[in-house]
Amino acid sequence: MPTIKDVALHAGVSRSTVSRVMNNHPYVDEEKRRAVRVAMTELGYIPNSSAQRLRGTETRTIAVLVSRIVNPFFSAIVDAMDEIAAAHSYRLILCNTRGSASQELHFLQLLRTKQVDGIILASIVNEWAIISPFTEYGPIVLCNEYPSHAEGVAIITIDQKQAMVDATTHLIEKGYKRIAYCNVHDERSQTLFDSALATDRYSGYVETMKKAELPIESSWRFIGHSVEDGKRILNEIMKCDDRPDAILTGSDEIASGLIAEAKKNNLRIPMDLAVVGFDNQPSASLLEPQLTTVHQPTLEMGKAAMLQMLADLKSDSRSNGTQLLDAPLLIRKST
Amino acid sequence: MPTIKDVALHAGVSRSTVSRVMNNHPYVDEEKRRAVRVAMTELGYIPNSSAQRLRGTETRTIAVLVSRIVNPFFSAIVDAMDEIAAAHSYRLILCNTRGSASQELHFLQLLRTKQVDGIILASIVNEWAIISPFTEYGPIVLCNEYPSHAEGVAIITIDQKQAMVDATTHLIEKGYKRIAYCNVHDERSQTLFDSALATDRYSGYVETMKKAELPIESSWRFIGHSVEDGKRILNEIMKCDDRPDAILTGSDEIASGLIAEAKKNNLRIPMDLAVVGFDNQPSASLLEPQLTTVHQPTLEMGKAAMLQMLADLKSDSRSNGTQLLDAPLLIRKST
Repeated sequence: MPTIKDVALHAGVSRSTVSRVMNNHPYVDEEKRRAVRVAMTELGYIPNSSAQRLRGTETRTIAVLVSRIVNPFFSAIVDAMDEIAAAHSYRLILCNTRGSASQELHFLQLLRTKQVDGIILASIVNEWAIISPFTEYGPIVLCNEYPSHAEGVAIITIDQKQAMVDATTHLIEKGYKRIAYCNVHDERSQTLFDSALATDRYSGYVETMKKAELPIESSWRFIGHSVEDGKRILNEIMKCDDRPDAILTGSDEIASGLIAEAKKNNLRIPMDLAVVGFDNQPSASLLEPQLTTVHQPTLEMGKAAMLQMLADLKSDSRSNGTQLLDAPLLIRKST
Repeated sequence: MPTIKDVALHAGVSRSTVSRVMNNHPYVDEEKRRAVRVAMTELGYIPNSSAQRLRGTETRTIAVLVSRIVNPFFSAIVDAMDEIAAAHSYRLILCNTRGSASQELHFLQLLRTKQVDGIILASIVNEWAIISPFTEYGPIVLCNEYPSHAEGVAIITIDQKQAMVDATTHLIEKGYKRIAYCNVHDERSQTLFDSALATDRYSGYVETMKKAELPIESSWRFIGHSVEDGKRILNEIMKCDDRPDAILTGSDEIASGLIAEAKKNNLRIPMDLAVVGFDNQPSASLLEPQLTTVHQPTLEMGKAAMLQMLADLKSDSRSNGTQLLDAPLLIRKST
C-alpha cells in the first residue's frame, strides 16, 4: 500500500506538503495542492483513518437517529454533531426513522453487529425497555428526547419544563388569559415511547396556569408538528366557541403554519391571537410578525452529544448523567 | 444465530406475525407487536439484511455528499433519497463536505475501500479530473451539480439555464430593467470545481438580458448563499449609485435575507426592489411578501438519483445520461 512518502515523491513535493494538503491547511500553493491530489488518485493512496477501518479494528462511525432530517431542528443538530465527529476523524450514518419503531430497531442492530461504534438518539420511538438492552453493545447517548428513567446513558437536552414555564409566564404577564397548548406529536409515529420531554413541557404549562388561577380547557389542547398541522389548528381555533387568545406550540414549523393561515382568516397576530414557537429555527426571525420562541441551542446540544459519545468511546465506564442546557425565551413581535 | 422461527416461538406468535412486525405492517395487535420486539431483543435476533452485511458480501450502504445539511434544499434531497434507499434495505452515510476538497476526497475513499456500494454527489468541490477515476471502484451518480463534461456517471438535475431564462423573462415582462444577479458560491469552498450549474444559470440570465437589449452591469453582480449573505448584499445594493430595481438570486436563503434587511432599510418589495428566489424551500410561501421563486423538485430529484444508483448497482454497465427535471417559476408577491 502506498505511503505518504510515495505520494510526496510522485507529486514532487515534501512530505509535510502532502500532510498539509490532506489536513486541508491554508497557505499551500494551488499547483502543489493539485499535484498532491493527482498523485493520491494515481497511486491509490488510502489515508490512515481509512486504512485503520480496513483492518477492522474500529468503524470510526457513529449512527445518529432522527425522526425527520427535513426538520431544521434535526438538521442543525446533525450538522453540529458532524462538525465534532469530522474533527476527530469519525463519520456519521444518518438514520431517518420516520417515526417507525421497526426502522429504529433495525438501526439499533448496527451497534450489536459492530457496524458502528456508538449510537446517538435525537428522537425515540420504541419504549425504553426495548432500547436499553442495546447499551450492552456500545455507548448510546440521548440528545433531545429522553425517557423518565434512563440508566446507562448520558442525556443532553434542555430544561423543557422551565422553557414552558418561561413561555407561559411571558404570555400571562402580557395579559393573555385564554392560553391554548399544542403538543408535539408525529402523526406517523406509533408512539410507543412515553416521552418525558412532552410530559415535562406540558407540566411547565399546567403548573404556571394553575398558579395564576387561569383555566386549562381540553378544547384548547392541540396536537401537531408540521406547517400543515399549524394551518389545520388555526382553522380549528377559528371554530372554537370560546376562542383562545394565545397559543404555546412545540415547534416553529407549527407556529409558522398558524401565522400563515391567520393572515388568510384576517386574524391579527398578536392582537387577536398571540403565538409562541419552539426551537428558534432560522425562519423564526424572518416571519412577519417575527416569532417569539424558545431558543433551542442546537449547536451546543449537537456538539455536547458528540463530545459525550467520544468520551464514552474512550472510557471503560459509561456516563449516565443529564446535561441540561439553557433555552431562553426570545421575545419578538408575535406576542 | 437465532432465526425468525425462534423469535416466533419465544414470543408465542406465528412466523408471519414476526415478519409483519419486522416489515412494519399495520393491523398487528399491539401486544403481539411488543412481544415480538422483546423476543428479538432477548434472543439477539439479527435481521437478514444485517446478517448479509456481517458476511461481508455487500455493504448495502450509499454515501451521499452534500456541502451543508442545514440547507433545506439538501436536507429535502437527502430525505427523498433515504425514502427510496430504506424501501430497498439500503442505508445512507451522510457526508457533509462543508465545501472542503480534502474532506470530499476522504469521503470518496469510502468507495475505493469498499465501505460503501456507491456514492451520490449532490455538491462537488474538487475538479472533475480528480473525482472521475473513482468511478472505477463503483457507481457514482451526480444529483444537482455537474461538470461540463462528465463521463461514466448519470446526472440528475434541473434545466438550470431554462430556469434562469424563465425568471429573467418574468422580471422583464413585469417592467423591470435594471436586473442584478447573485451567483451561488460557498465562501468556505476552495472552488476548484468549475461548476456547469453556475455557468448554465448565468448564461440564461445573460442571453435573456441581451435579447431584450438591457444592460448587464458588473456592479450588479453579487455572490452569496446564506441568509447573512442576503443581508450583506442588500446593504451593498443600498450603496449603489445606480441601484438595480430587481435581483435574481441562487437560493431562497439569500432572498429571505434580502427581504428581511430591506424592511429594516424601508425599501419596499417589490415596488423598490423585486426579488426572485431559487429552490422553493418551505419558508418561501411563509415570507412576507411571499417569494417568487424557481421550484426545484427536490423530492423527484432525490428519488430519481437513488433509483438510478440502485439500477447502476444491479447492472454491469454504467449509465451516463443526463435527466433534466422541470423547474417551473412560481410567481408570488415579491416581483
